[in-house]
Amino acid sequence: MLPEEIKRVLREYKEGEIDEKEMEAYLVDLPYENLEFAKIDHHRALRHGFPEVIFGQNKTTDQTVTIAKHILQKSPNVLITRTGEEVYTLLKSNFAECCYHPLSRIVTVIRNKTSNGRGKIGIFSAGTADIPVAEEASLTAEIMGNEVLTCYDVGVAGLHRLLSQRDDMRSCTVLIVVAGMEGALPSVVGGLVDVPVIAVPTSVGYGASFNGLAALLGMLNSCSSNVTVVNIDNGFGAGYVASLINRA
Amino acid sequence: MLPEEIKRVLREYKEGEIDEKEMEAYLVDLPYENLEFAKIDHHRALRHGFPEVIFGQNKTTDQTVTIAKHILQKSPNVLITRTGEEVYTLLKSNFAECCYHPLSRIVTVIRNKTSNGRGKIGIFSAGTADIPVAEEASLTAEIMGNEVLTCYDVGVAGLHRLLSQRDDMRSCTVLIVVAGMEGALPSVVGGLVDVPVIAVPTSVGYGASFNGLAALLGMLNSCSSNVTVVNIDNGFGAGYVASLINRA
Amino acid sequence: MLPEEIKRVLREYKEGEIDEKEMEAYLVDLPYENLEFAKIDHHRALRHGFPEVIFGQNKTTDQTVTIAKHILQKSPNVLITRTGEEVYTLLKSNFAECCYHPLSRIVTVIRNKTSNGRGKIGIFSAGTADIPVAEEASLTAEIMGNEVLTCYDVGVAGLHRLLSQRDDMRSCTVLIVVAGMEGALPSVVGGLVDVPVIAVPTSVGYGASFNGLAALLGMLNSCSSNVTVVNIDNGFGAGYVASLINRA
Amino acid sequence: MLPEEIKRVLREYKEGEIDEKEMEAYLVDLPYENLEFAKIDHHRALRHGFPEVIFGQNKTTDQTVTIAKHILQKSPNVLITRTGEEVYTLLKSNFAECCYHPLSRIVTVIRNKTSNGRGKIGIFSAGTADIPVAEEASLTAEIMGNEVLTCYDVGVAGLHRLLSQRDDMRSCTVLIVVAGMEGALPSVVGGLVDVPVIAVPTSVGYGASFNGLAALLGMLNSCSSNVTVVNIDNGFGAGYVASLINRA
Amino acid sequence: MLPEEIKRVLREYKEGEIDEKEMEAYLVDLPYENLEFAKIDHHRALRHGFPEVIFGQNKTTDQTVTIAKHILQKSPNVLITRTGEEVYTLLKSNFAECCYHPLSRIVTVIRNKTSNGRGKIGIFSAGTADIPVAEEASLTAEIMGNEVLTCYDVGVAGLHRLLSQRDDMRSCTVLIVVAGMEGALPSVVGGLVDVPVIAVPTSVGYGASFNGLAALLGMLNSCSSNVTVVNIDNGFGAGYVASLINRA
Amino acid sequence: MLPEEIKRVLREYKEGEIDEKEMEAYLVDLPYENLEFAKIDHHRALRHGFPEVIFGQNKTTDQTVTIAKHILQKSPNVLITRTGEEVYTLLKSNFAECCYHPLSRIVTVIRNKTSNGRGKIGIFSAGTADIPVAEEASLTAEIMGNEVLTCYDVGVAGLHRLLSQRDDMRSCTVLIVVAGMEGALPSVVGGLVDVPVIAVPTSVGYGASFNGLAALLGMLNSCSSNVTVVNIDNGFGAGYVASLINRA
Amino acid sequence: MLPEEIKRVLREYKEGEIDEKEMEAYLVDLPYENLEFAKIDHHRALRHGFPEVIFGQNKTTDQTVTIAKHILQKSPNVLITRTGEEVYTLLKSNFAECCYHPLSRIVTVIRNKTSNGRGKIGIFSAGTADIPVAEEASLTAEIMGNEVLTCYDVGVAGLHRLLSQRDDMRSCTVLIVVAGMEGALPSVVGGLVDVPVIAVPTSVGYGASFNGLAALLGMLNSCSSNVTVVNIDNGFGAGYVASLINRA
Amino acid sequence: MLPEEIKRVLREYKEGEIDEKEMEAYLVDLPYENLEFAKIDHHRALRHGFPEVIFGQNKTTDQTVTIAKHILQKSPNVLITRTGEEVYTLLKSNFAECCYHPLSRIVTVIRNKTSNGRGKIGIFSAGTADIPVAEEASLTAEIMGNEVLTCYDVGVAGLHRLLSQRDDMRSCTVLIVVAGMEGALPSVVGGLVDVPVIAVPTSVGYGASFNGLAALLGMLNSCSSNVTVVNIDNGFGAGYVASLINRA
Repeated sequence: MLPEEIKRVLREYKEGEIDEKEMEAYLVDLPYENLEFAKIDHHRALRHGFPEVIFGQNKTTDQTVTIAKHILQKSPNVLITRTGEEVYTLLKSNFAECCYHPLSRIVTVIRNKTSNGRGKIGIFSAGTADIPVAEEASLTAEIMGNEVLTCYDVGVAGLHRLLSQRDDMRSCTVLIVVAGMEGALPSVVGGLVDVPVIAVPTSVGYGASFNGLAALLGMLNSCSSNVTVVNIDNGFGAGYVASLINRA
Repeated sequence: MLPEEIKRVLREYKEGEIDEKEMEAYLVDLPYENLEFAKIDHHRALRHGFPEVIFGQNKTTDQTVTIAKHILQKSPNVLITRTGEEVYTLLKSNFAECCYHPLSRIVTVIRNKTSNGRGKIGIFSAGTADIPVAEEASLTAEIMGNEVLTCYDVGVAGLHRLLSQRDDMRSCTVLIVVAGMEGALPSVVGGLVDVPVIAVPTSVGYGASFNGLAALLGMLNSCSSNVTVVNIDNGFGAGYVASLINRA
Repeated sequence: MLPEEIKRVLREYKEGEIDEKEMEAYLVDLPYENLEFAKIDHHRALRHGFPEVIFGQNKTTDQTVTIAKHILQKSPNVLITRTGEEVYTLLKSNFAECCYHPLSRIVTVIRNKTSNGRGKIGIFSAGTADIPVAEEASLTAEIMGNEVLTCYDVGVAGLHRLLSQRDDMRSCTVLIVVAGMEGALPSVVGGLVDVPVIAVPTSVGYGASFNGLAALLGMLNSCSSNVTVVNIDNGFGAGYVASLINRA
Repeated sequence: MLPEEIKRVLREYKEGEIDEKEMEAYLVDLPYENLEFAKIDHHRALRHGFPEVIFGQNKTTDQTVTIAKHILQKSPNVLITRTGEEVYTLLKSNFAECCYHPLSRIVTVIRNKTSNGRGKIGIFSAGTADIPVAEEASLTAEIMGNEVLTCYDVGVAGLHRLLSQRDDMRSCTVLIVVAGMEGALPSVVGGLVDVPVIAVPTSVGYGASFNGLAALLGMLNSCSSNVTVVNIDNGFGAGYVASLINRA
Repeated sequence: MLPEEIKRVLREYKEGEIDEKEMEAYLVDLPYENLEFAKIDHHRALRHGFPEVIFGQNKTTDQTVTIAKHILQKSPNVLITRTGEEVYTLLKSNFAECCYHPLSRIVTVIRNKTSNGRGKIGIFSAGTADIPVAEEASLTAEIMGNEVLTCYDVGVAGLHRLLSQRDDMRSCTVLIVVAGMEGALPSVVGGLVDVPVIAVPTSVGYGASFNGLAALLGMLNSCSSNVTVVNIDNGFGAGYVASLINRA
Repeated sequence: MLPEEIKRVLREYKEGEIDEKEMEAYLVDLPYENLEFAKIDHHRALRHGFPEVIFGQNKTTDQTVTIAKHILQKSPNVLITRTGEEVYTLLKSNFAECCYHPLSRIVTVIRNKTSNGRGKIGIFSAGTADIPVAEEASLTAEIMGNEVLTCYDVGVAGLHRLLSQRDDMRSCTVLIVVAGMEGALPSVVGGLVDVPVIAVPTSVGYGASFNGLAALLGMLNSCSSNVTVVNIDNGFGAGYVASLINRA
Repeated sequence: MLPEEIKRVLREYKEGEIDEKEMEAYLVDLPYENLEFAKIDHHRALRHGFPEVIFGQNKTTDQTVTIAKHILQKSPNVLITRTGEEVYTLLKSNFAECCYHPLSRIVTVIRNKTSNGRGKIGIFSAGTADIPVAEEASLTAEIMGNEVLTCYDVGVAGLHRLLSQRDDMRSCTVLIVVAGMEGALPSVVGGLVDVPVIAVPTSVGYGASFNGLAALLGMLNSCSSNVTVVNIDNGFGAGYVASLINRA
Repeated sequence: MLPEEIKRVLREYKEGEIDEKEMEAYLVDLPYENLEFAKIDHHRALRHGFPEVIFGQNKTTDQTVTIAKHILQKSPNVLITRTGEEVYTLLKSNFAECCYHPLSRIVTVIRNKTSNGRGKIGIFSAGTADIPVAEEASLTAEIMGNEVLTCYDVGVAGLHRLLSQRDDMRSCTVLIVVAGMEGALPSVVGGLVDVPVIAVPTSVGYGASFNGLAALLGMLNSCSSNVTVVNIDNGFGAGYVASLINRA
């Protein structure tokens, strides 16, 4: 499957014609595998320290399963977000480790679970309805080798619930805070800790929440300086960046 | 100045031809004084329990002073919002009680200070820059006869500052909460008390605050059920409604 | 179900080691019951004078019924908004007092109906299509122990309909005004009364109503100073705050 | 100034080679006068029954005066909107009938005042700050030969002021209703009359009025079916269309 | 059904105690018929010169049919917009004149067709997809007693199609111009005629048309001064106002 | 000023070690000149067939003049947009060919005027106020070596003005159409020609034009398929792309 | 089907009474064929160099097929966008060359494939989900007689994929760049080439992509001067303009 | 200045009555110093590892200088953003280390410069006009003890400039990427590195950039998973979070 060129380069490397640093630089820019409708990037794990993730939205079940199988030939793990139970059923027969997480609509195959974080990643969410997005963040962080601490339904209207988790909160290296409606939780959490807080607005709400716009704007204007923001409902992105921050 | 008609009605009332209830109903719908460029409503105090307020924005100094003098012929007090020092200077010579509040750009003449509230009105604001709007609310509540408790610079990023005011907060009949940026303070305060909370978004902030839109949306989507909202920077409106709620 | 700690505190209270005021303060900050997917706050009734309400949107029938049953073990009443007939059917077998209100999609169980308001709460709505939101406000106010006066289909385009209700309007302690489209009703009503008016914009309309945005903006910019606003379609919030205002 | 072609056509018309209808059709499509930076349309009066109006915004004083003089060579009247006192000063020396209206920043030269309307045009405005836009509408309607009835400061929060004008309102052929803030006045007026109502939103307001957007959306969503809308602050357009409707 | 009061007034009128003008004034403010879920305004025809129209959206088939039957007891005609074939089927059995117009989803019962316009109402639309809205305008104008001239699919990208209709266009007393996408047609038509143009933006388009917002903004900013605008897809409103303008 | 490397490469090229194609490829990727606060790209002329343009907005006079002088050491021409007369004054002393265009606030130095277009570029604008943006497009097209045909003040409300330019319009290889307000002109022009039309929305207008948003949306939704759009007021971009299209 | 008039004109042309140039001018303005619900423009091919395209959205299957058949009587080819398989099935029986393209939901009948471009049109898209829009552009460009080069899934997050296509990119006369999400691809591509780039934002994305608004705004603000933009998802428009640019 | 309570607690700590962990917990929640108009939080350095920053916008020169002096009594360093030269002049006389940075309008006093980062923080900006925001980020990161690498004017339209910095880019622990206009730079940089990227949209641009909204939306929708976003022009926030991530 790999083109002739890379075989040649590898041979040159083995024979000492190019040194290790050159070799690594070469691999970093190596092309990708072409499936016609998608170009799989097998070397992302090398470049980014993480296996390929498949964003299932807008892909057919067949496309998703085909891409997943190609990845699993080269990589032990795969994470498929925004997908359905059909993808799970089709992969399960080939990969016993395949799991389906119905709330977040995620399929995972995890055959190599290593831990490489400096500390824990904490994931806090405001309401019951925010749990699917929080779970997407949590599964992403776990498959990237992190220990995850979750705490759900601790919205700012019931501050005592949140404050009782202060010790847990302060034990983490980085926090992900998931909230819809007015999106106030990251500001409050951000004021209680001294680590980076990744805020995830969710589309939970109605009326003037405008599908998450209110929460998004609230988080971007946070008066806590340790808050950065990702896209509405982007649990994956939050889990991904938190993992990079927590990397040893 | 009053038309003949009202004189006749008053005589009828004195002589018992119309009873007290009819008389009151008559007055409630009585017309107004016409200054050509503005129609002063001398009976608003009767109808709404409050003297005329002058919204100074978009009015010339002359117009504002003229209206103020007409009101002060019939009513002991007046409140002029969004005005300037020139109005104060011109009124001060005639009305010794005239005061100027530079932060909120308010002029007041208070010649009759009565107290008629059931309890205290609490006014909390998130940051230093929100103080002008909070002061507009505070002066409004005071001129309407209320005891006011203020607490500024207690934003959610420093939760311990806010929590240390919990007893004060719980001693009030109604709260006004003023905040810009993400506008999270009303949600947090709303969760700590069991009285109505009037949220005032301010235009304080930059970038994606969009001149107060972020705070406004945040407050409208508050997860605390006891929160209602007024327009951006509308300290007067908040003070006015709080006074109605606090009325004995 | 209650942790050991609270038993100990209660004993201390009985034996006079802590006084009544301390006891009350303790209870106010007491933790909540953890159902994994939701944290029920049994003490909200103490803090806020109202039993738990369940916001049914984004919850499964099973989740909703489970939470309702837990609440009904501790509290006589429950209010479930934005839910469906299935929840009603499942609860009805256990709780004879269970009712379903199809227009507003609300389920109630009311086993203890007490009245504790200072006066009446008036609920006015502009058009036939606004009735579901008005009913949500009305049921909320009733379950919180208030006498409610409703008047529907009195939009501003037929002013004589509205004006004929002026006496009813003026007999209330607080008004809730529900309107979609241009949302002008609260301004007109606000000018006719001297009590607080809670405006509820609805998503009724089409085209440039942008799902209630036009009504929302209109209400926020009301020229009547006694108007505050809640989120689009938020009948519950309006009923809740009106009840707090009307509380004896 | 007229090209040879039109002279030829006119001769043909005189000699009966083309009949009156053809002649009129020819004139309707006749070209314009070219000033390099602007093309004056002398025949608009023929086509539209109205002399050229000059929209002063974005034009220099020199450009405006030059265009005005060209128009006044062919037409008795001119209307210059959104201009300044300098234009007035420069025109006044040549045209004694020149007037400046400082509130609306309009300059007029009216040398031929004819009346051609079927009835009166009524202009109602909500607040003092809306008067400049109302005056722009009023001057436009007057220069186009209409009798105008104005009534200012009759906002919906003081309904009795408005209702006392009901007879005046019903005496007009068409109404212009000018309002900022929530823009509710056209809906209320529209429900009281059975003639066309032209609604003019103004940029008067603050915060969530978003420079007139709230009023604009409110008017577009009016529940009164006889309401149409023009651009924010577009008093000229409203006066123009009202004149067309009122034309005998 | 009419209250005693009106009977008394009518007798007074017959006996000469009140004159015709007073009688008419009385009727104009007469109350409405109360169906619990809707208040029918039988006197709108008197006040506005038009029978009741039913806005079918957000009403159940039963509600719509019930209201229609009540109206048809007092009024010969009815117009039901945004409804479905079921309403037609249910009314057809009682009212032989009942018609269904599937494109615009309108049901009409016309038992008294009188003509009362000064001239013709012209209705022009830009594309095939705009026809339903144009038809709503057309049926409204017809039921209100006007002669209607329609011309569809004459968008500005094929100007020769439009220009070939210039004579028809100029034969009308008022024009309705319906367009989606960029909404340019009213500006072009407005420049070709000297009568009022009512612009109707439609939600036809995709992407950055934002469901009609692009067309709406375009029409509000028209450089043709004779253009006013109604809400997106509001064919009824346009037909209604055009009829008022065209009234003899 | 050129680094050693390029000298070496040039020598290799001269000696035939690398061929012409390799040489060109090398130059295309050649680095830029570093002025600390800006990186001048001397080879843009090679890559893009056009000398460096300086976008003056947000640059100080000193920065602008410094960059201009550096460019003029290597390139015969320069175009500075959105700048002021001070830049002109400072450059004029060194470069006699320096011109200032006050309407569009552009400074040009043109020392080598070659013509390389296939045909003419037509620039049409709707109103007098759009001329500055049209001039920016025109000067850009001219400095890039094109013959330009301009026609201003031909808005769609006076269609006969526009139609009389039809022959000119059809003589061009590509058209730039500049319009504010409703932005309808590109759709109309697009329907009259069979060449690409580049639409430039301008911020001309008021109220609901929202600083050019209305025109922008109108143009993006154009029913003429040959229209593409650039940013609001981006005359330069339009002139640039038109030049690329017209390139022989 | 053609009116008598055109026959007469053609005879005049044949007999030399009107010359070729007059004849062409005549045809350019010739009217269209009227199908009641649509006006087919048979001469668009003459005017615009392209057969009629049918925009299938908002048309019934019957309408679409009827229009298609009428076109195919006069023109060899037709392109139907945003349609469904039913249209294909109905046309296939009559026209053997009929094809259905399920990704882009396009039906084509191509009976005369000529090539008339100056060079190749390159179509680049960012992600797998953007392919349907890219295919719409590609089929449009092909049916208009162009050679097309496509390159999909070359988003900016994997720059090495894109850079490896640089030679292909530089071999084209004009580029179409299709991207959703942040829409950054046109800026990057625009910086690598010196030909016009037509940017097509797609509605691909979620949350704050607001159905393509983020990509649209990004492309309009591109820092590459050779970029123009079409509507969201408007692959057809991009293919159409690219063909005009590429025309020999 | 410290209250009696803390003295007592400190004595208890010294005498071993409370251990170190308790002591730290106590200090974390310690109150703040009250200046009436602002509450200074001296313990933020303990909690967040950073001295107090003063956000100068909306503060008077006097307020800013007063706060700064209070902070400098307890803390060696201070950072004042969005301020002016007057603040610098007033502080300079007392604090020799005081510096003013005119581009970013920042005043710093740095008396204790320690380095505590794990690696370098890289700051990349797209255009010359983005430098002020980049400098705000840079100064923040430096005062928090980090080594900073800056690279300005490397926008995506000149990709070779950016790619030549790839090694620098890959040598950092965390990157801050600052861009206005379309905001594409973070996506491209994010794809080239495997560390967290903090994207800062700037208000640089015009027209449809809507003061940074285009860049903000672009960054939130980035196809690079390692990107998080802060508010428009929020260089301080980016520098702050980057410092937390880089903390040893």
